[in-house]
Amino acid sequence: MFKKLSAEFLGTFWLVFGGCGSAVLAAAFPEVGIGLLGVAFAFGLTVLTMAYTVGGISGGHFNPAVSVGLTVAGKFPVSSLVPYIVAQVVGAVAAAAVLYLVASGKAGFTAGGFASNGYGELSPGGYSLTAALVIEVVLTAFFLLIILGSTHARAPVGFAPIAIGLGLTLIHLVSIPVTNTSVNPARSTGVALFAETAALSQLWLFWVAPILGAVIGAVIWKVVGETD
Amino acid sequence: MFKKLSAEFLGTFWLVFGGCGSAVLAAAFPEVGIGLLGVAFAFGLTVLTMAYTVGGISGGHFNPAVSVGLTVAGKFPVSSLVPYIVAQVVGAVAAAAVLYLVASGKAGFTAGGFASNGYGELSPGGYSLTAALVIEVVLTAFFLLIILGSTHARAPVGFAPIAIGLGLTLIHLVSIPVTNTSVNPARSTGVALFAETAALSQLWLFWVAPILGAVIGAVIWKVVGETD
Amino acid sequence: MFKKLSAEFLGTFWLVFGGCGSAVLAAAFPEVGIGLLGVAFAFGLTVLTMAYTVGGISGGHFNPAVSVGLTVAGKFPVSSLVPYIVAQVVGAVAAAAVLYLVASGKAGFTAGGFASNGYGELSPGGYSLTAALVIEVVLTAFFLLIILGSTHARAPVGFAPIAIGLGLTLIHLVSIPVTNTSVNPARSTGVALFAETAALSQLWLFWVAPILGAVIGAVIWKVVGETD
Amino acid sequence: MFKKLSAEFLGTFWLVFGGCGSAVLAAAFPEVGIGLLGVAFAFGLTVLTMAYTVGGISGGHFNPAVSVGLTVAGKFPVSSLVPYIVAQVVGAVAAAAVLYLVASGKAGFTAGGFASNGYGELSPGGYSLTAALVIEVVLTAFFLLIILGSTHARAPVGFAPIAIGLGLTLIHLVSIPVTNTSVNPARSTGVALFAETAALSQLWLFWVAPILGAVIGAVIWKVVGETD
Repeated sequence: MFKKLSAEFLGTFWLVFGGCGSAVLAAAFPEVGIGLLGVAFAFGLTVLTMAYTVGGISGGHFNPAVSVGLTVAGKFPVSSLVPYIVAQVVGAVAAAAVLYLVASGKAGFTAGGFASNGYGELSPGGYSLTAALVIEVVLTAFFLLIILGSTHARAPVGFAPIAIGLGLTLIHLVSIPVTNTSVNPARSTGVALFAETAALSQLWLFWVAPILGAVIGAVIWKVVGETD
Repeated sequence: MFKKLSAEFLGTFWLVFGGCGSAVLAAAFPEVGIGLLGVAFAFGLTVLTMAYTVGGISGGHFNPAVSVGLTVAGKFPVSSLVPYIVAQVVGAVAAAAVLYLVASGKAGFTAGGFASNGYGELSPGGYSLTAALVIEVVLTAFFLLIILGSTHARAPVGFAPIAIGLGLTLIHLVSIPVTNTSVNPARSTGVALFAETAALSQLWLFWVAPILGAVIGAVIWKVVGETD
Repeated sequence: MFKKLSAEFLGTFWLVFGGCGSAVLAAAFPEVGIGLLGVAFAFGLTVLTMAYTVGGISGGHFNPAVSVGLTVAGKFPVSSLVPYIVAQVVGAVAAAAVLYLVASGKAGFTAGGFASNGYGELSPGGYSLTAALVIEVVLTAFFLLIILGSTHARAPVGFAPIAIGLGLTLIHLVSIPVTNTSVNPARSTGVALFAETAALSQLWLFWVAPILGAVIGAVIWKVVGETD
Repeated sequence: MFKKLSAEFLGTFWLVFGGCGSAVLAAAFPEVGIGLLGVAFAFGLTVLTMAYTVGGISGGHFNPAVSVGLTVAGKFPVSSLVPYIVAQVVGAVAAAAVLYLVASGKAGFTAGGFASNGYGELSPGGYSLTAALVIEVVLTAFFLLIILGSTHARAPVGFAPIAIGLGLTLIHLVSIPVTNTSVNPARSTGVALFAETAALSQLWLFWVAPILGAVIGAVIWKVVGETD
């Protein structure tokens, strides 16, 4: 269990350091910044790389909503749920702290939103709470479908990290303007602690919506994806 | 059959929600928008991810032109054609409706073209009907070639979703300025219902051209790709 | 042989229609154009997709320099060289013609360089003949190394189209500003016929340099890559 | 050993020519330049392609920090360390020289930083020495984790070059603004020799930090990743 929790810590650290790091450090770099497209690839590639690296150790969740969804789908023991989620959140917070240390090494740095998630006034594009709720639920539901389907015995062996990682890229391509894209409560929590905005006051949504979406995705999979 | 049709519904929902969603929500986001390159990746990754997720259940068409082409190539029973196409169109319309709900959660939202396809005045770059017809036929023909070739017994196992998904990305990289890229009548239908433009009046072309192209691709494959 | 030549025709058609098509139609689209990055992905994905589609039929060269290099490396019979090159050039010219038809469907269209290759005044960035020669030789040599190495018995099965296709993307990421990137005489020939510039007068370089590079790459591989 | 060292020479040549080449020649091309996102893909694809090409010959390090880390992890003999590092540095210097030859073929060329790495005044975004040290250590540590994990017997066969190559892309997406991204002392050395800035005076950091990070990554892997 120590190795599994270490793997989840490392994977979630990488997700936040790589994904949020690209957003904070490189997205809006003058003239040649990577933009939202680059951030979307960064998030996806954190999961692609870590799933190949430690997927065989912990299963490669890196996300409390994923752990909950897999439990609902009957693929993960409920007894491991709390330790996994704790390791994920600790990894995310540690990554945000190291990222803050790096980012503050530039003269005139201000944390601002620090890549945190939000709705209404804290939505990058000014989207409402309802829009934020709907898109986080829908996208997390499909994220779980991708995870459950691409790791199913029917799917070709070895490709799941590509499908899941690039699935997370796709999710970001759609939804950064709406919520800055969570689908992952640990990721949201890590950076919200360092944001100068009111991100913490909206953090509840980015636990509720992804977990709700993950449960819905798991239930749909049980109906559509499992053989009788 | 229920599971197959559900899989086609989910896959086509994802194609429209992810692909058209990226176009509506994120393509032109100020300063850091994902542009047509990001939209091209989004469309391709919807198919890549869902082919790994439910390809083993329904075959992973998500597109009436693909279903028709596979029937012509002798890979899909004609008796399943109508149910598949209905499931695909219903999935596309449902996705467009949810996307509309999300997009309208921003103050001052207007649907505009809503990522619909068009030619002439409704072509993003002002291309003629002839140009639109030719490019949709050619690209759908090659899309079918990619599908038939990469899933053939000669091709290495497991890679087809990568070839097909990134093939759809490539198709978008070429043709968004011409028609906003259809090659998929269901995708065109879903969003045309919500467009404020005259997209519905041009919808016929995006049924005719992709299906014609798919038939041509299937016939070419039977000549070039099948062993005697 | 008919099927092999048809496969080479189709693959080279796709390379020019997809790669040069993205450059002509979408690279500089206002505000949201795909840029050189999008063009680089388009070229690479034409080869990735067609290698999975018809690689098992013809070997998937789509490029006279590749056919020559594989002959030098002892992987391709010299007797098939001329028919392959003819099929490739015919495919490239046909693709350029269809692309011209589509592109001219926009009011005010002028062909300009039509994605042709050049040096000196016809280099996108104004690079000299020497710079153009050196970079085309170096990049084609490495392209052959990638092809020979990733298809070698030592390499994992099935991944070669990914390595080769994304290798071509990489080659374009480096060299579009220098020569508009050839590494493929058929691709250069196809569009040069339609260019309004003096591209045809420089076409010799894009036969000489890629073939020279391919021979060098094949010789290096025989020394470094083949077991004794 | 000659073939192994030749493979390391070629791979590191390609890494510098492709990665730094894209930065020098194409990143800031007017209007349609590939930006930092394109440079990030270029670096990653050099490793992806060469790992499939010569990974079976030399192991595909192309980086002194990787060779050191693999030695610490017990995967590479200490007796081969110096020859490998020499071959890597020679390959990097040769690539920088050829790149200089090409780049200087444009009227008015000045080398400037020539894609070299730096901190403080030589950091692209003006980041401090501390920020540069921290991010290079963290990113190289994770790079080693990815290499060790994705090539482990537990991981699916054949996918490691994808994970490692795209992992390097991710690393660049995060850190180009901070240090121009090294994680590779050979890459840093090659171009520093041609820079017109004081890059050579800062080169020590890009030997110390990546190697320190690689050792940390290898130690973490021994604790977390190896079975008892």
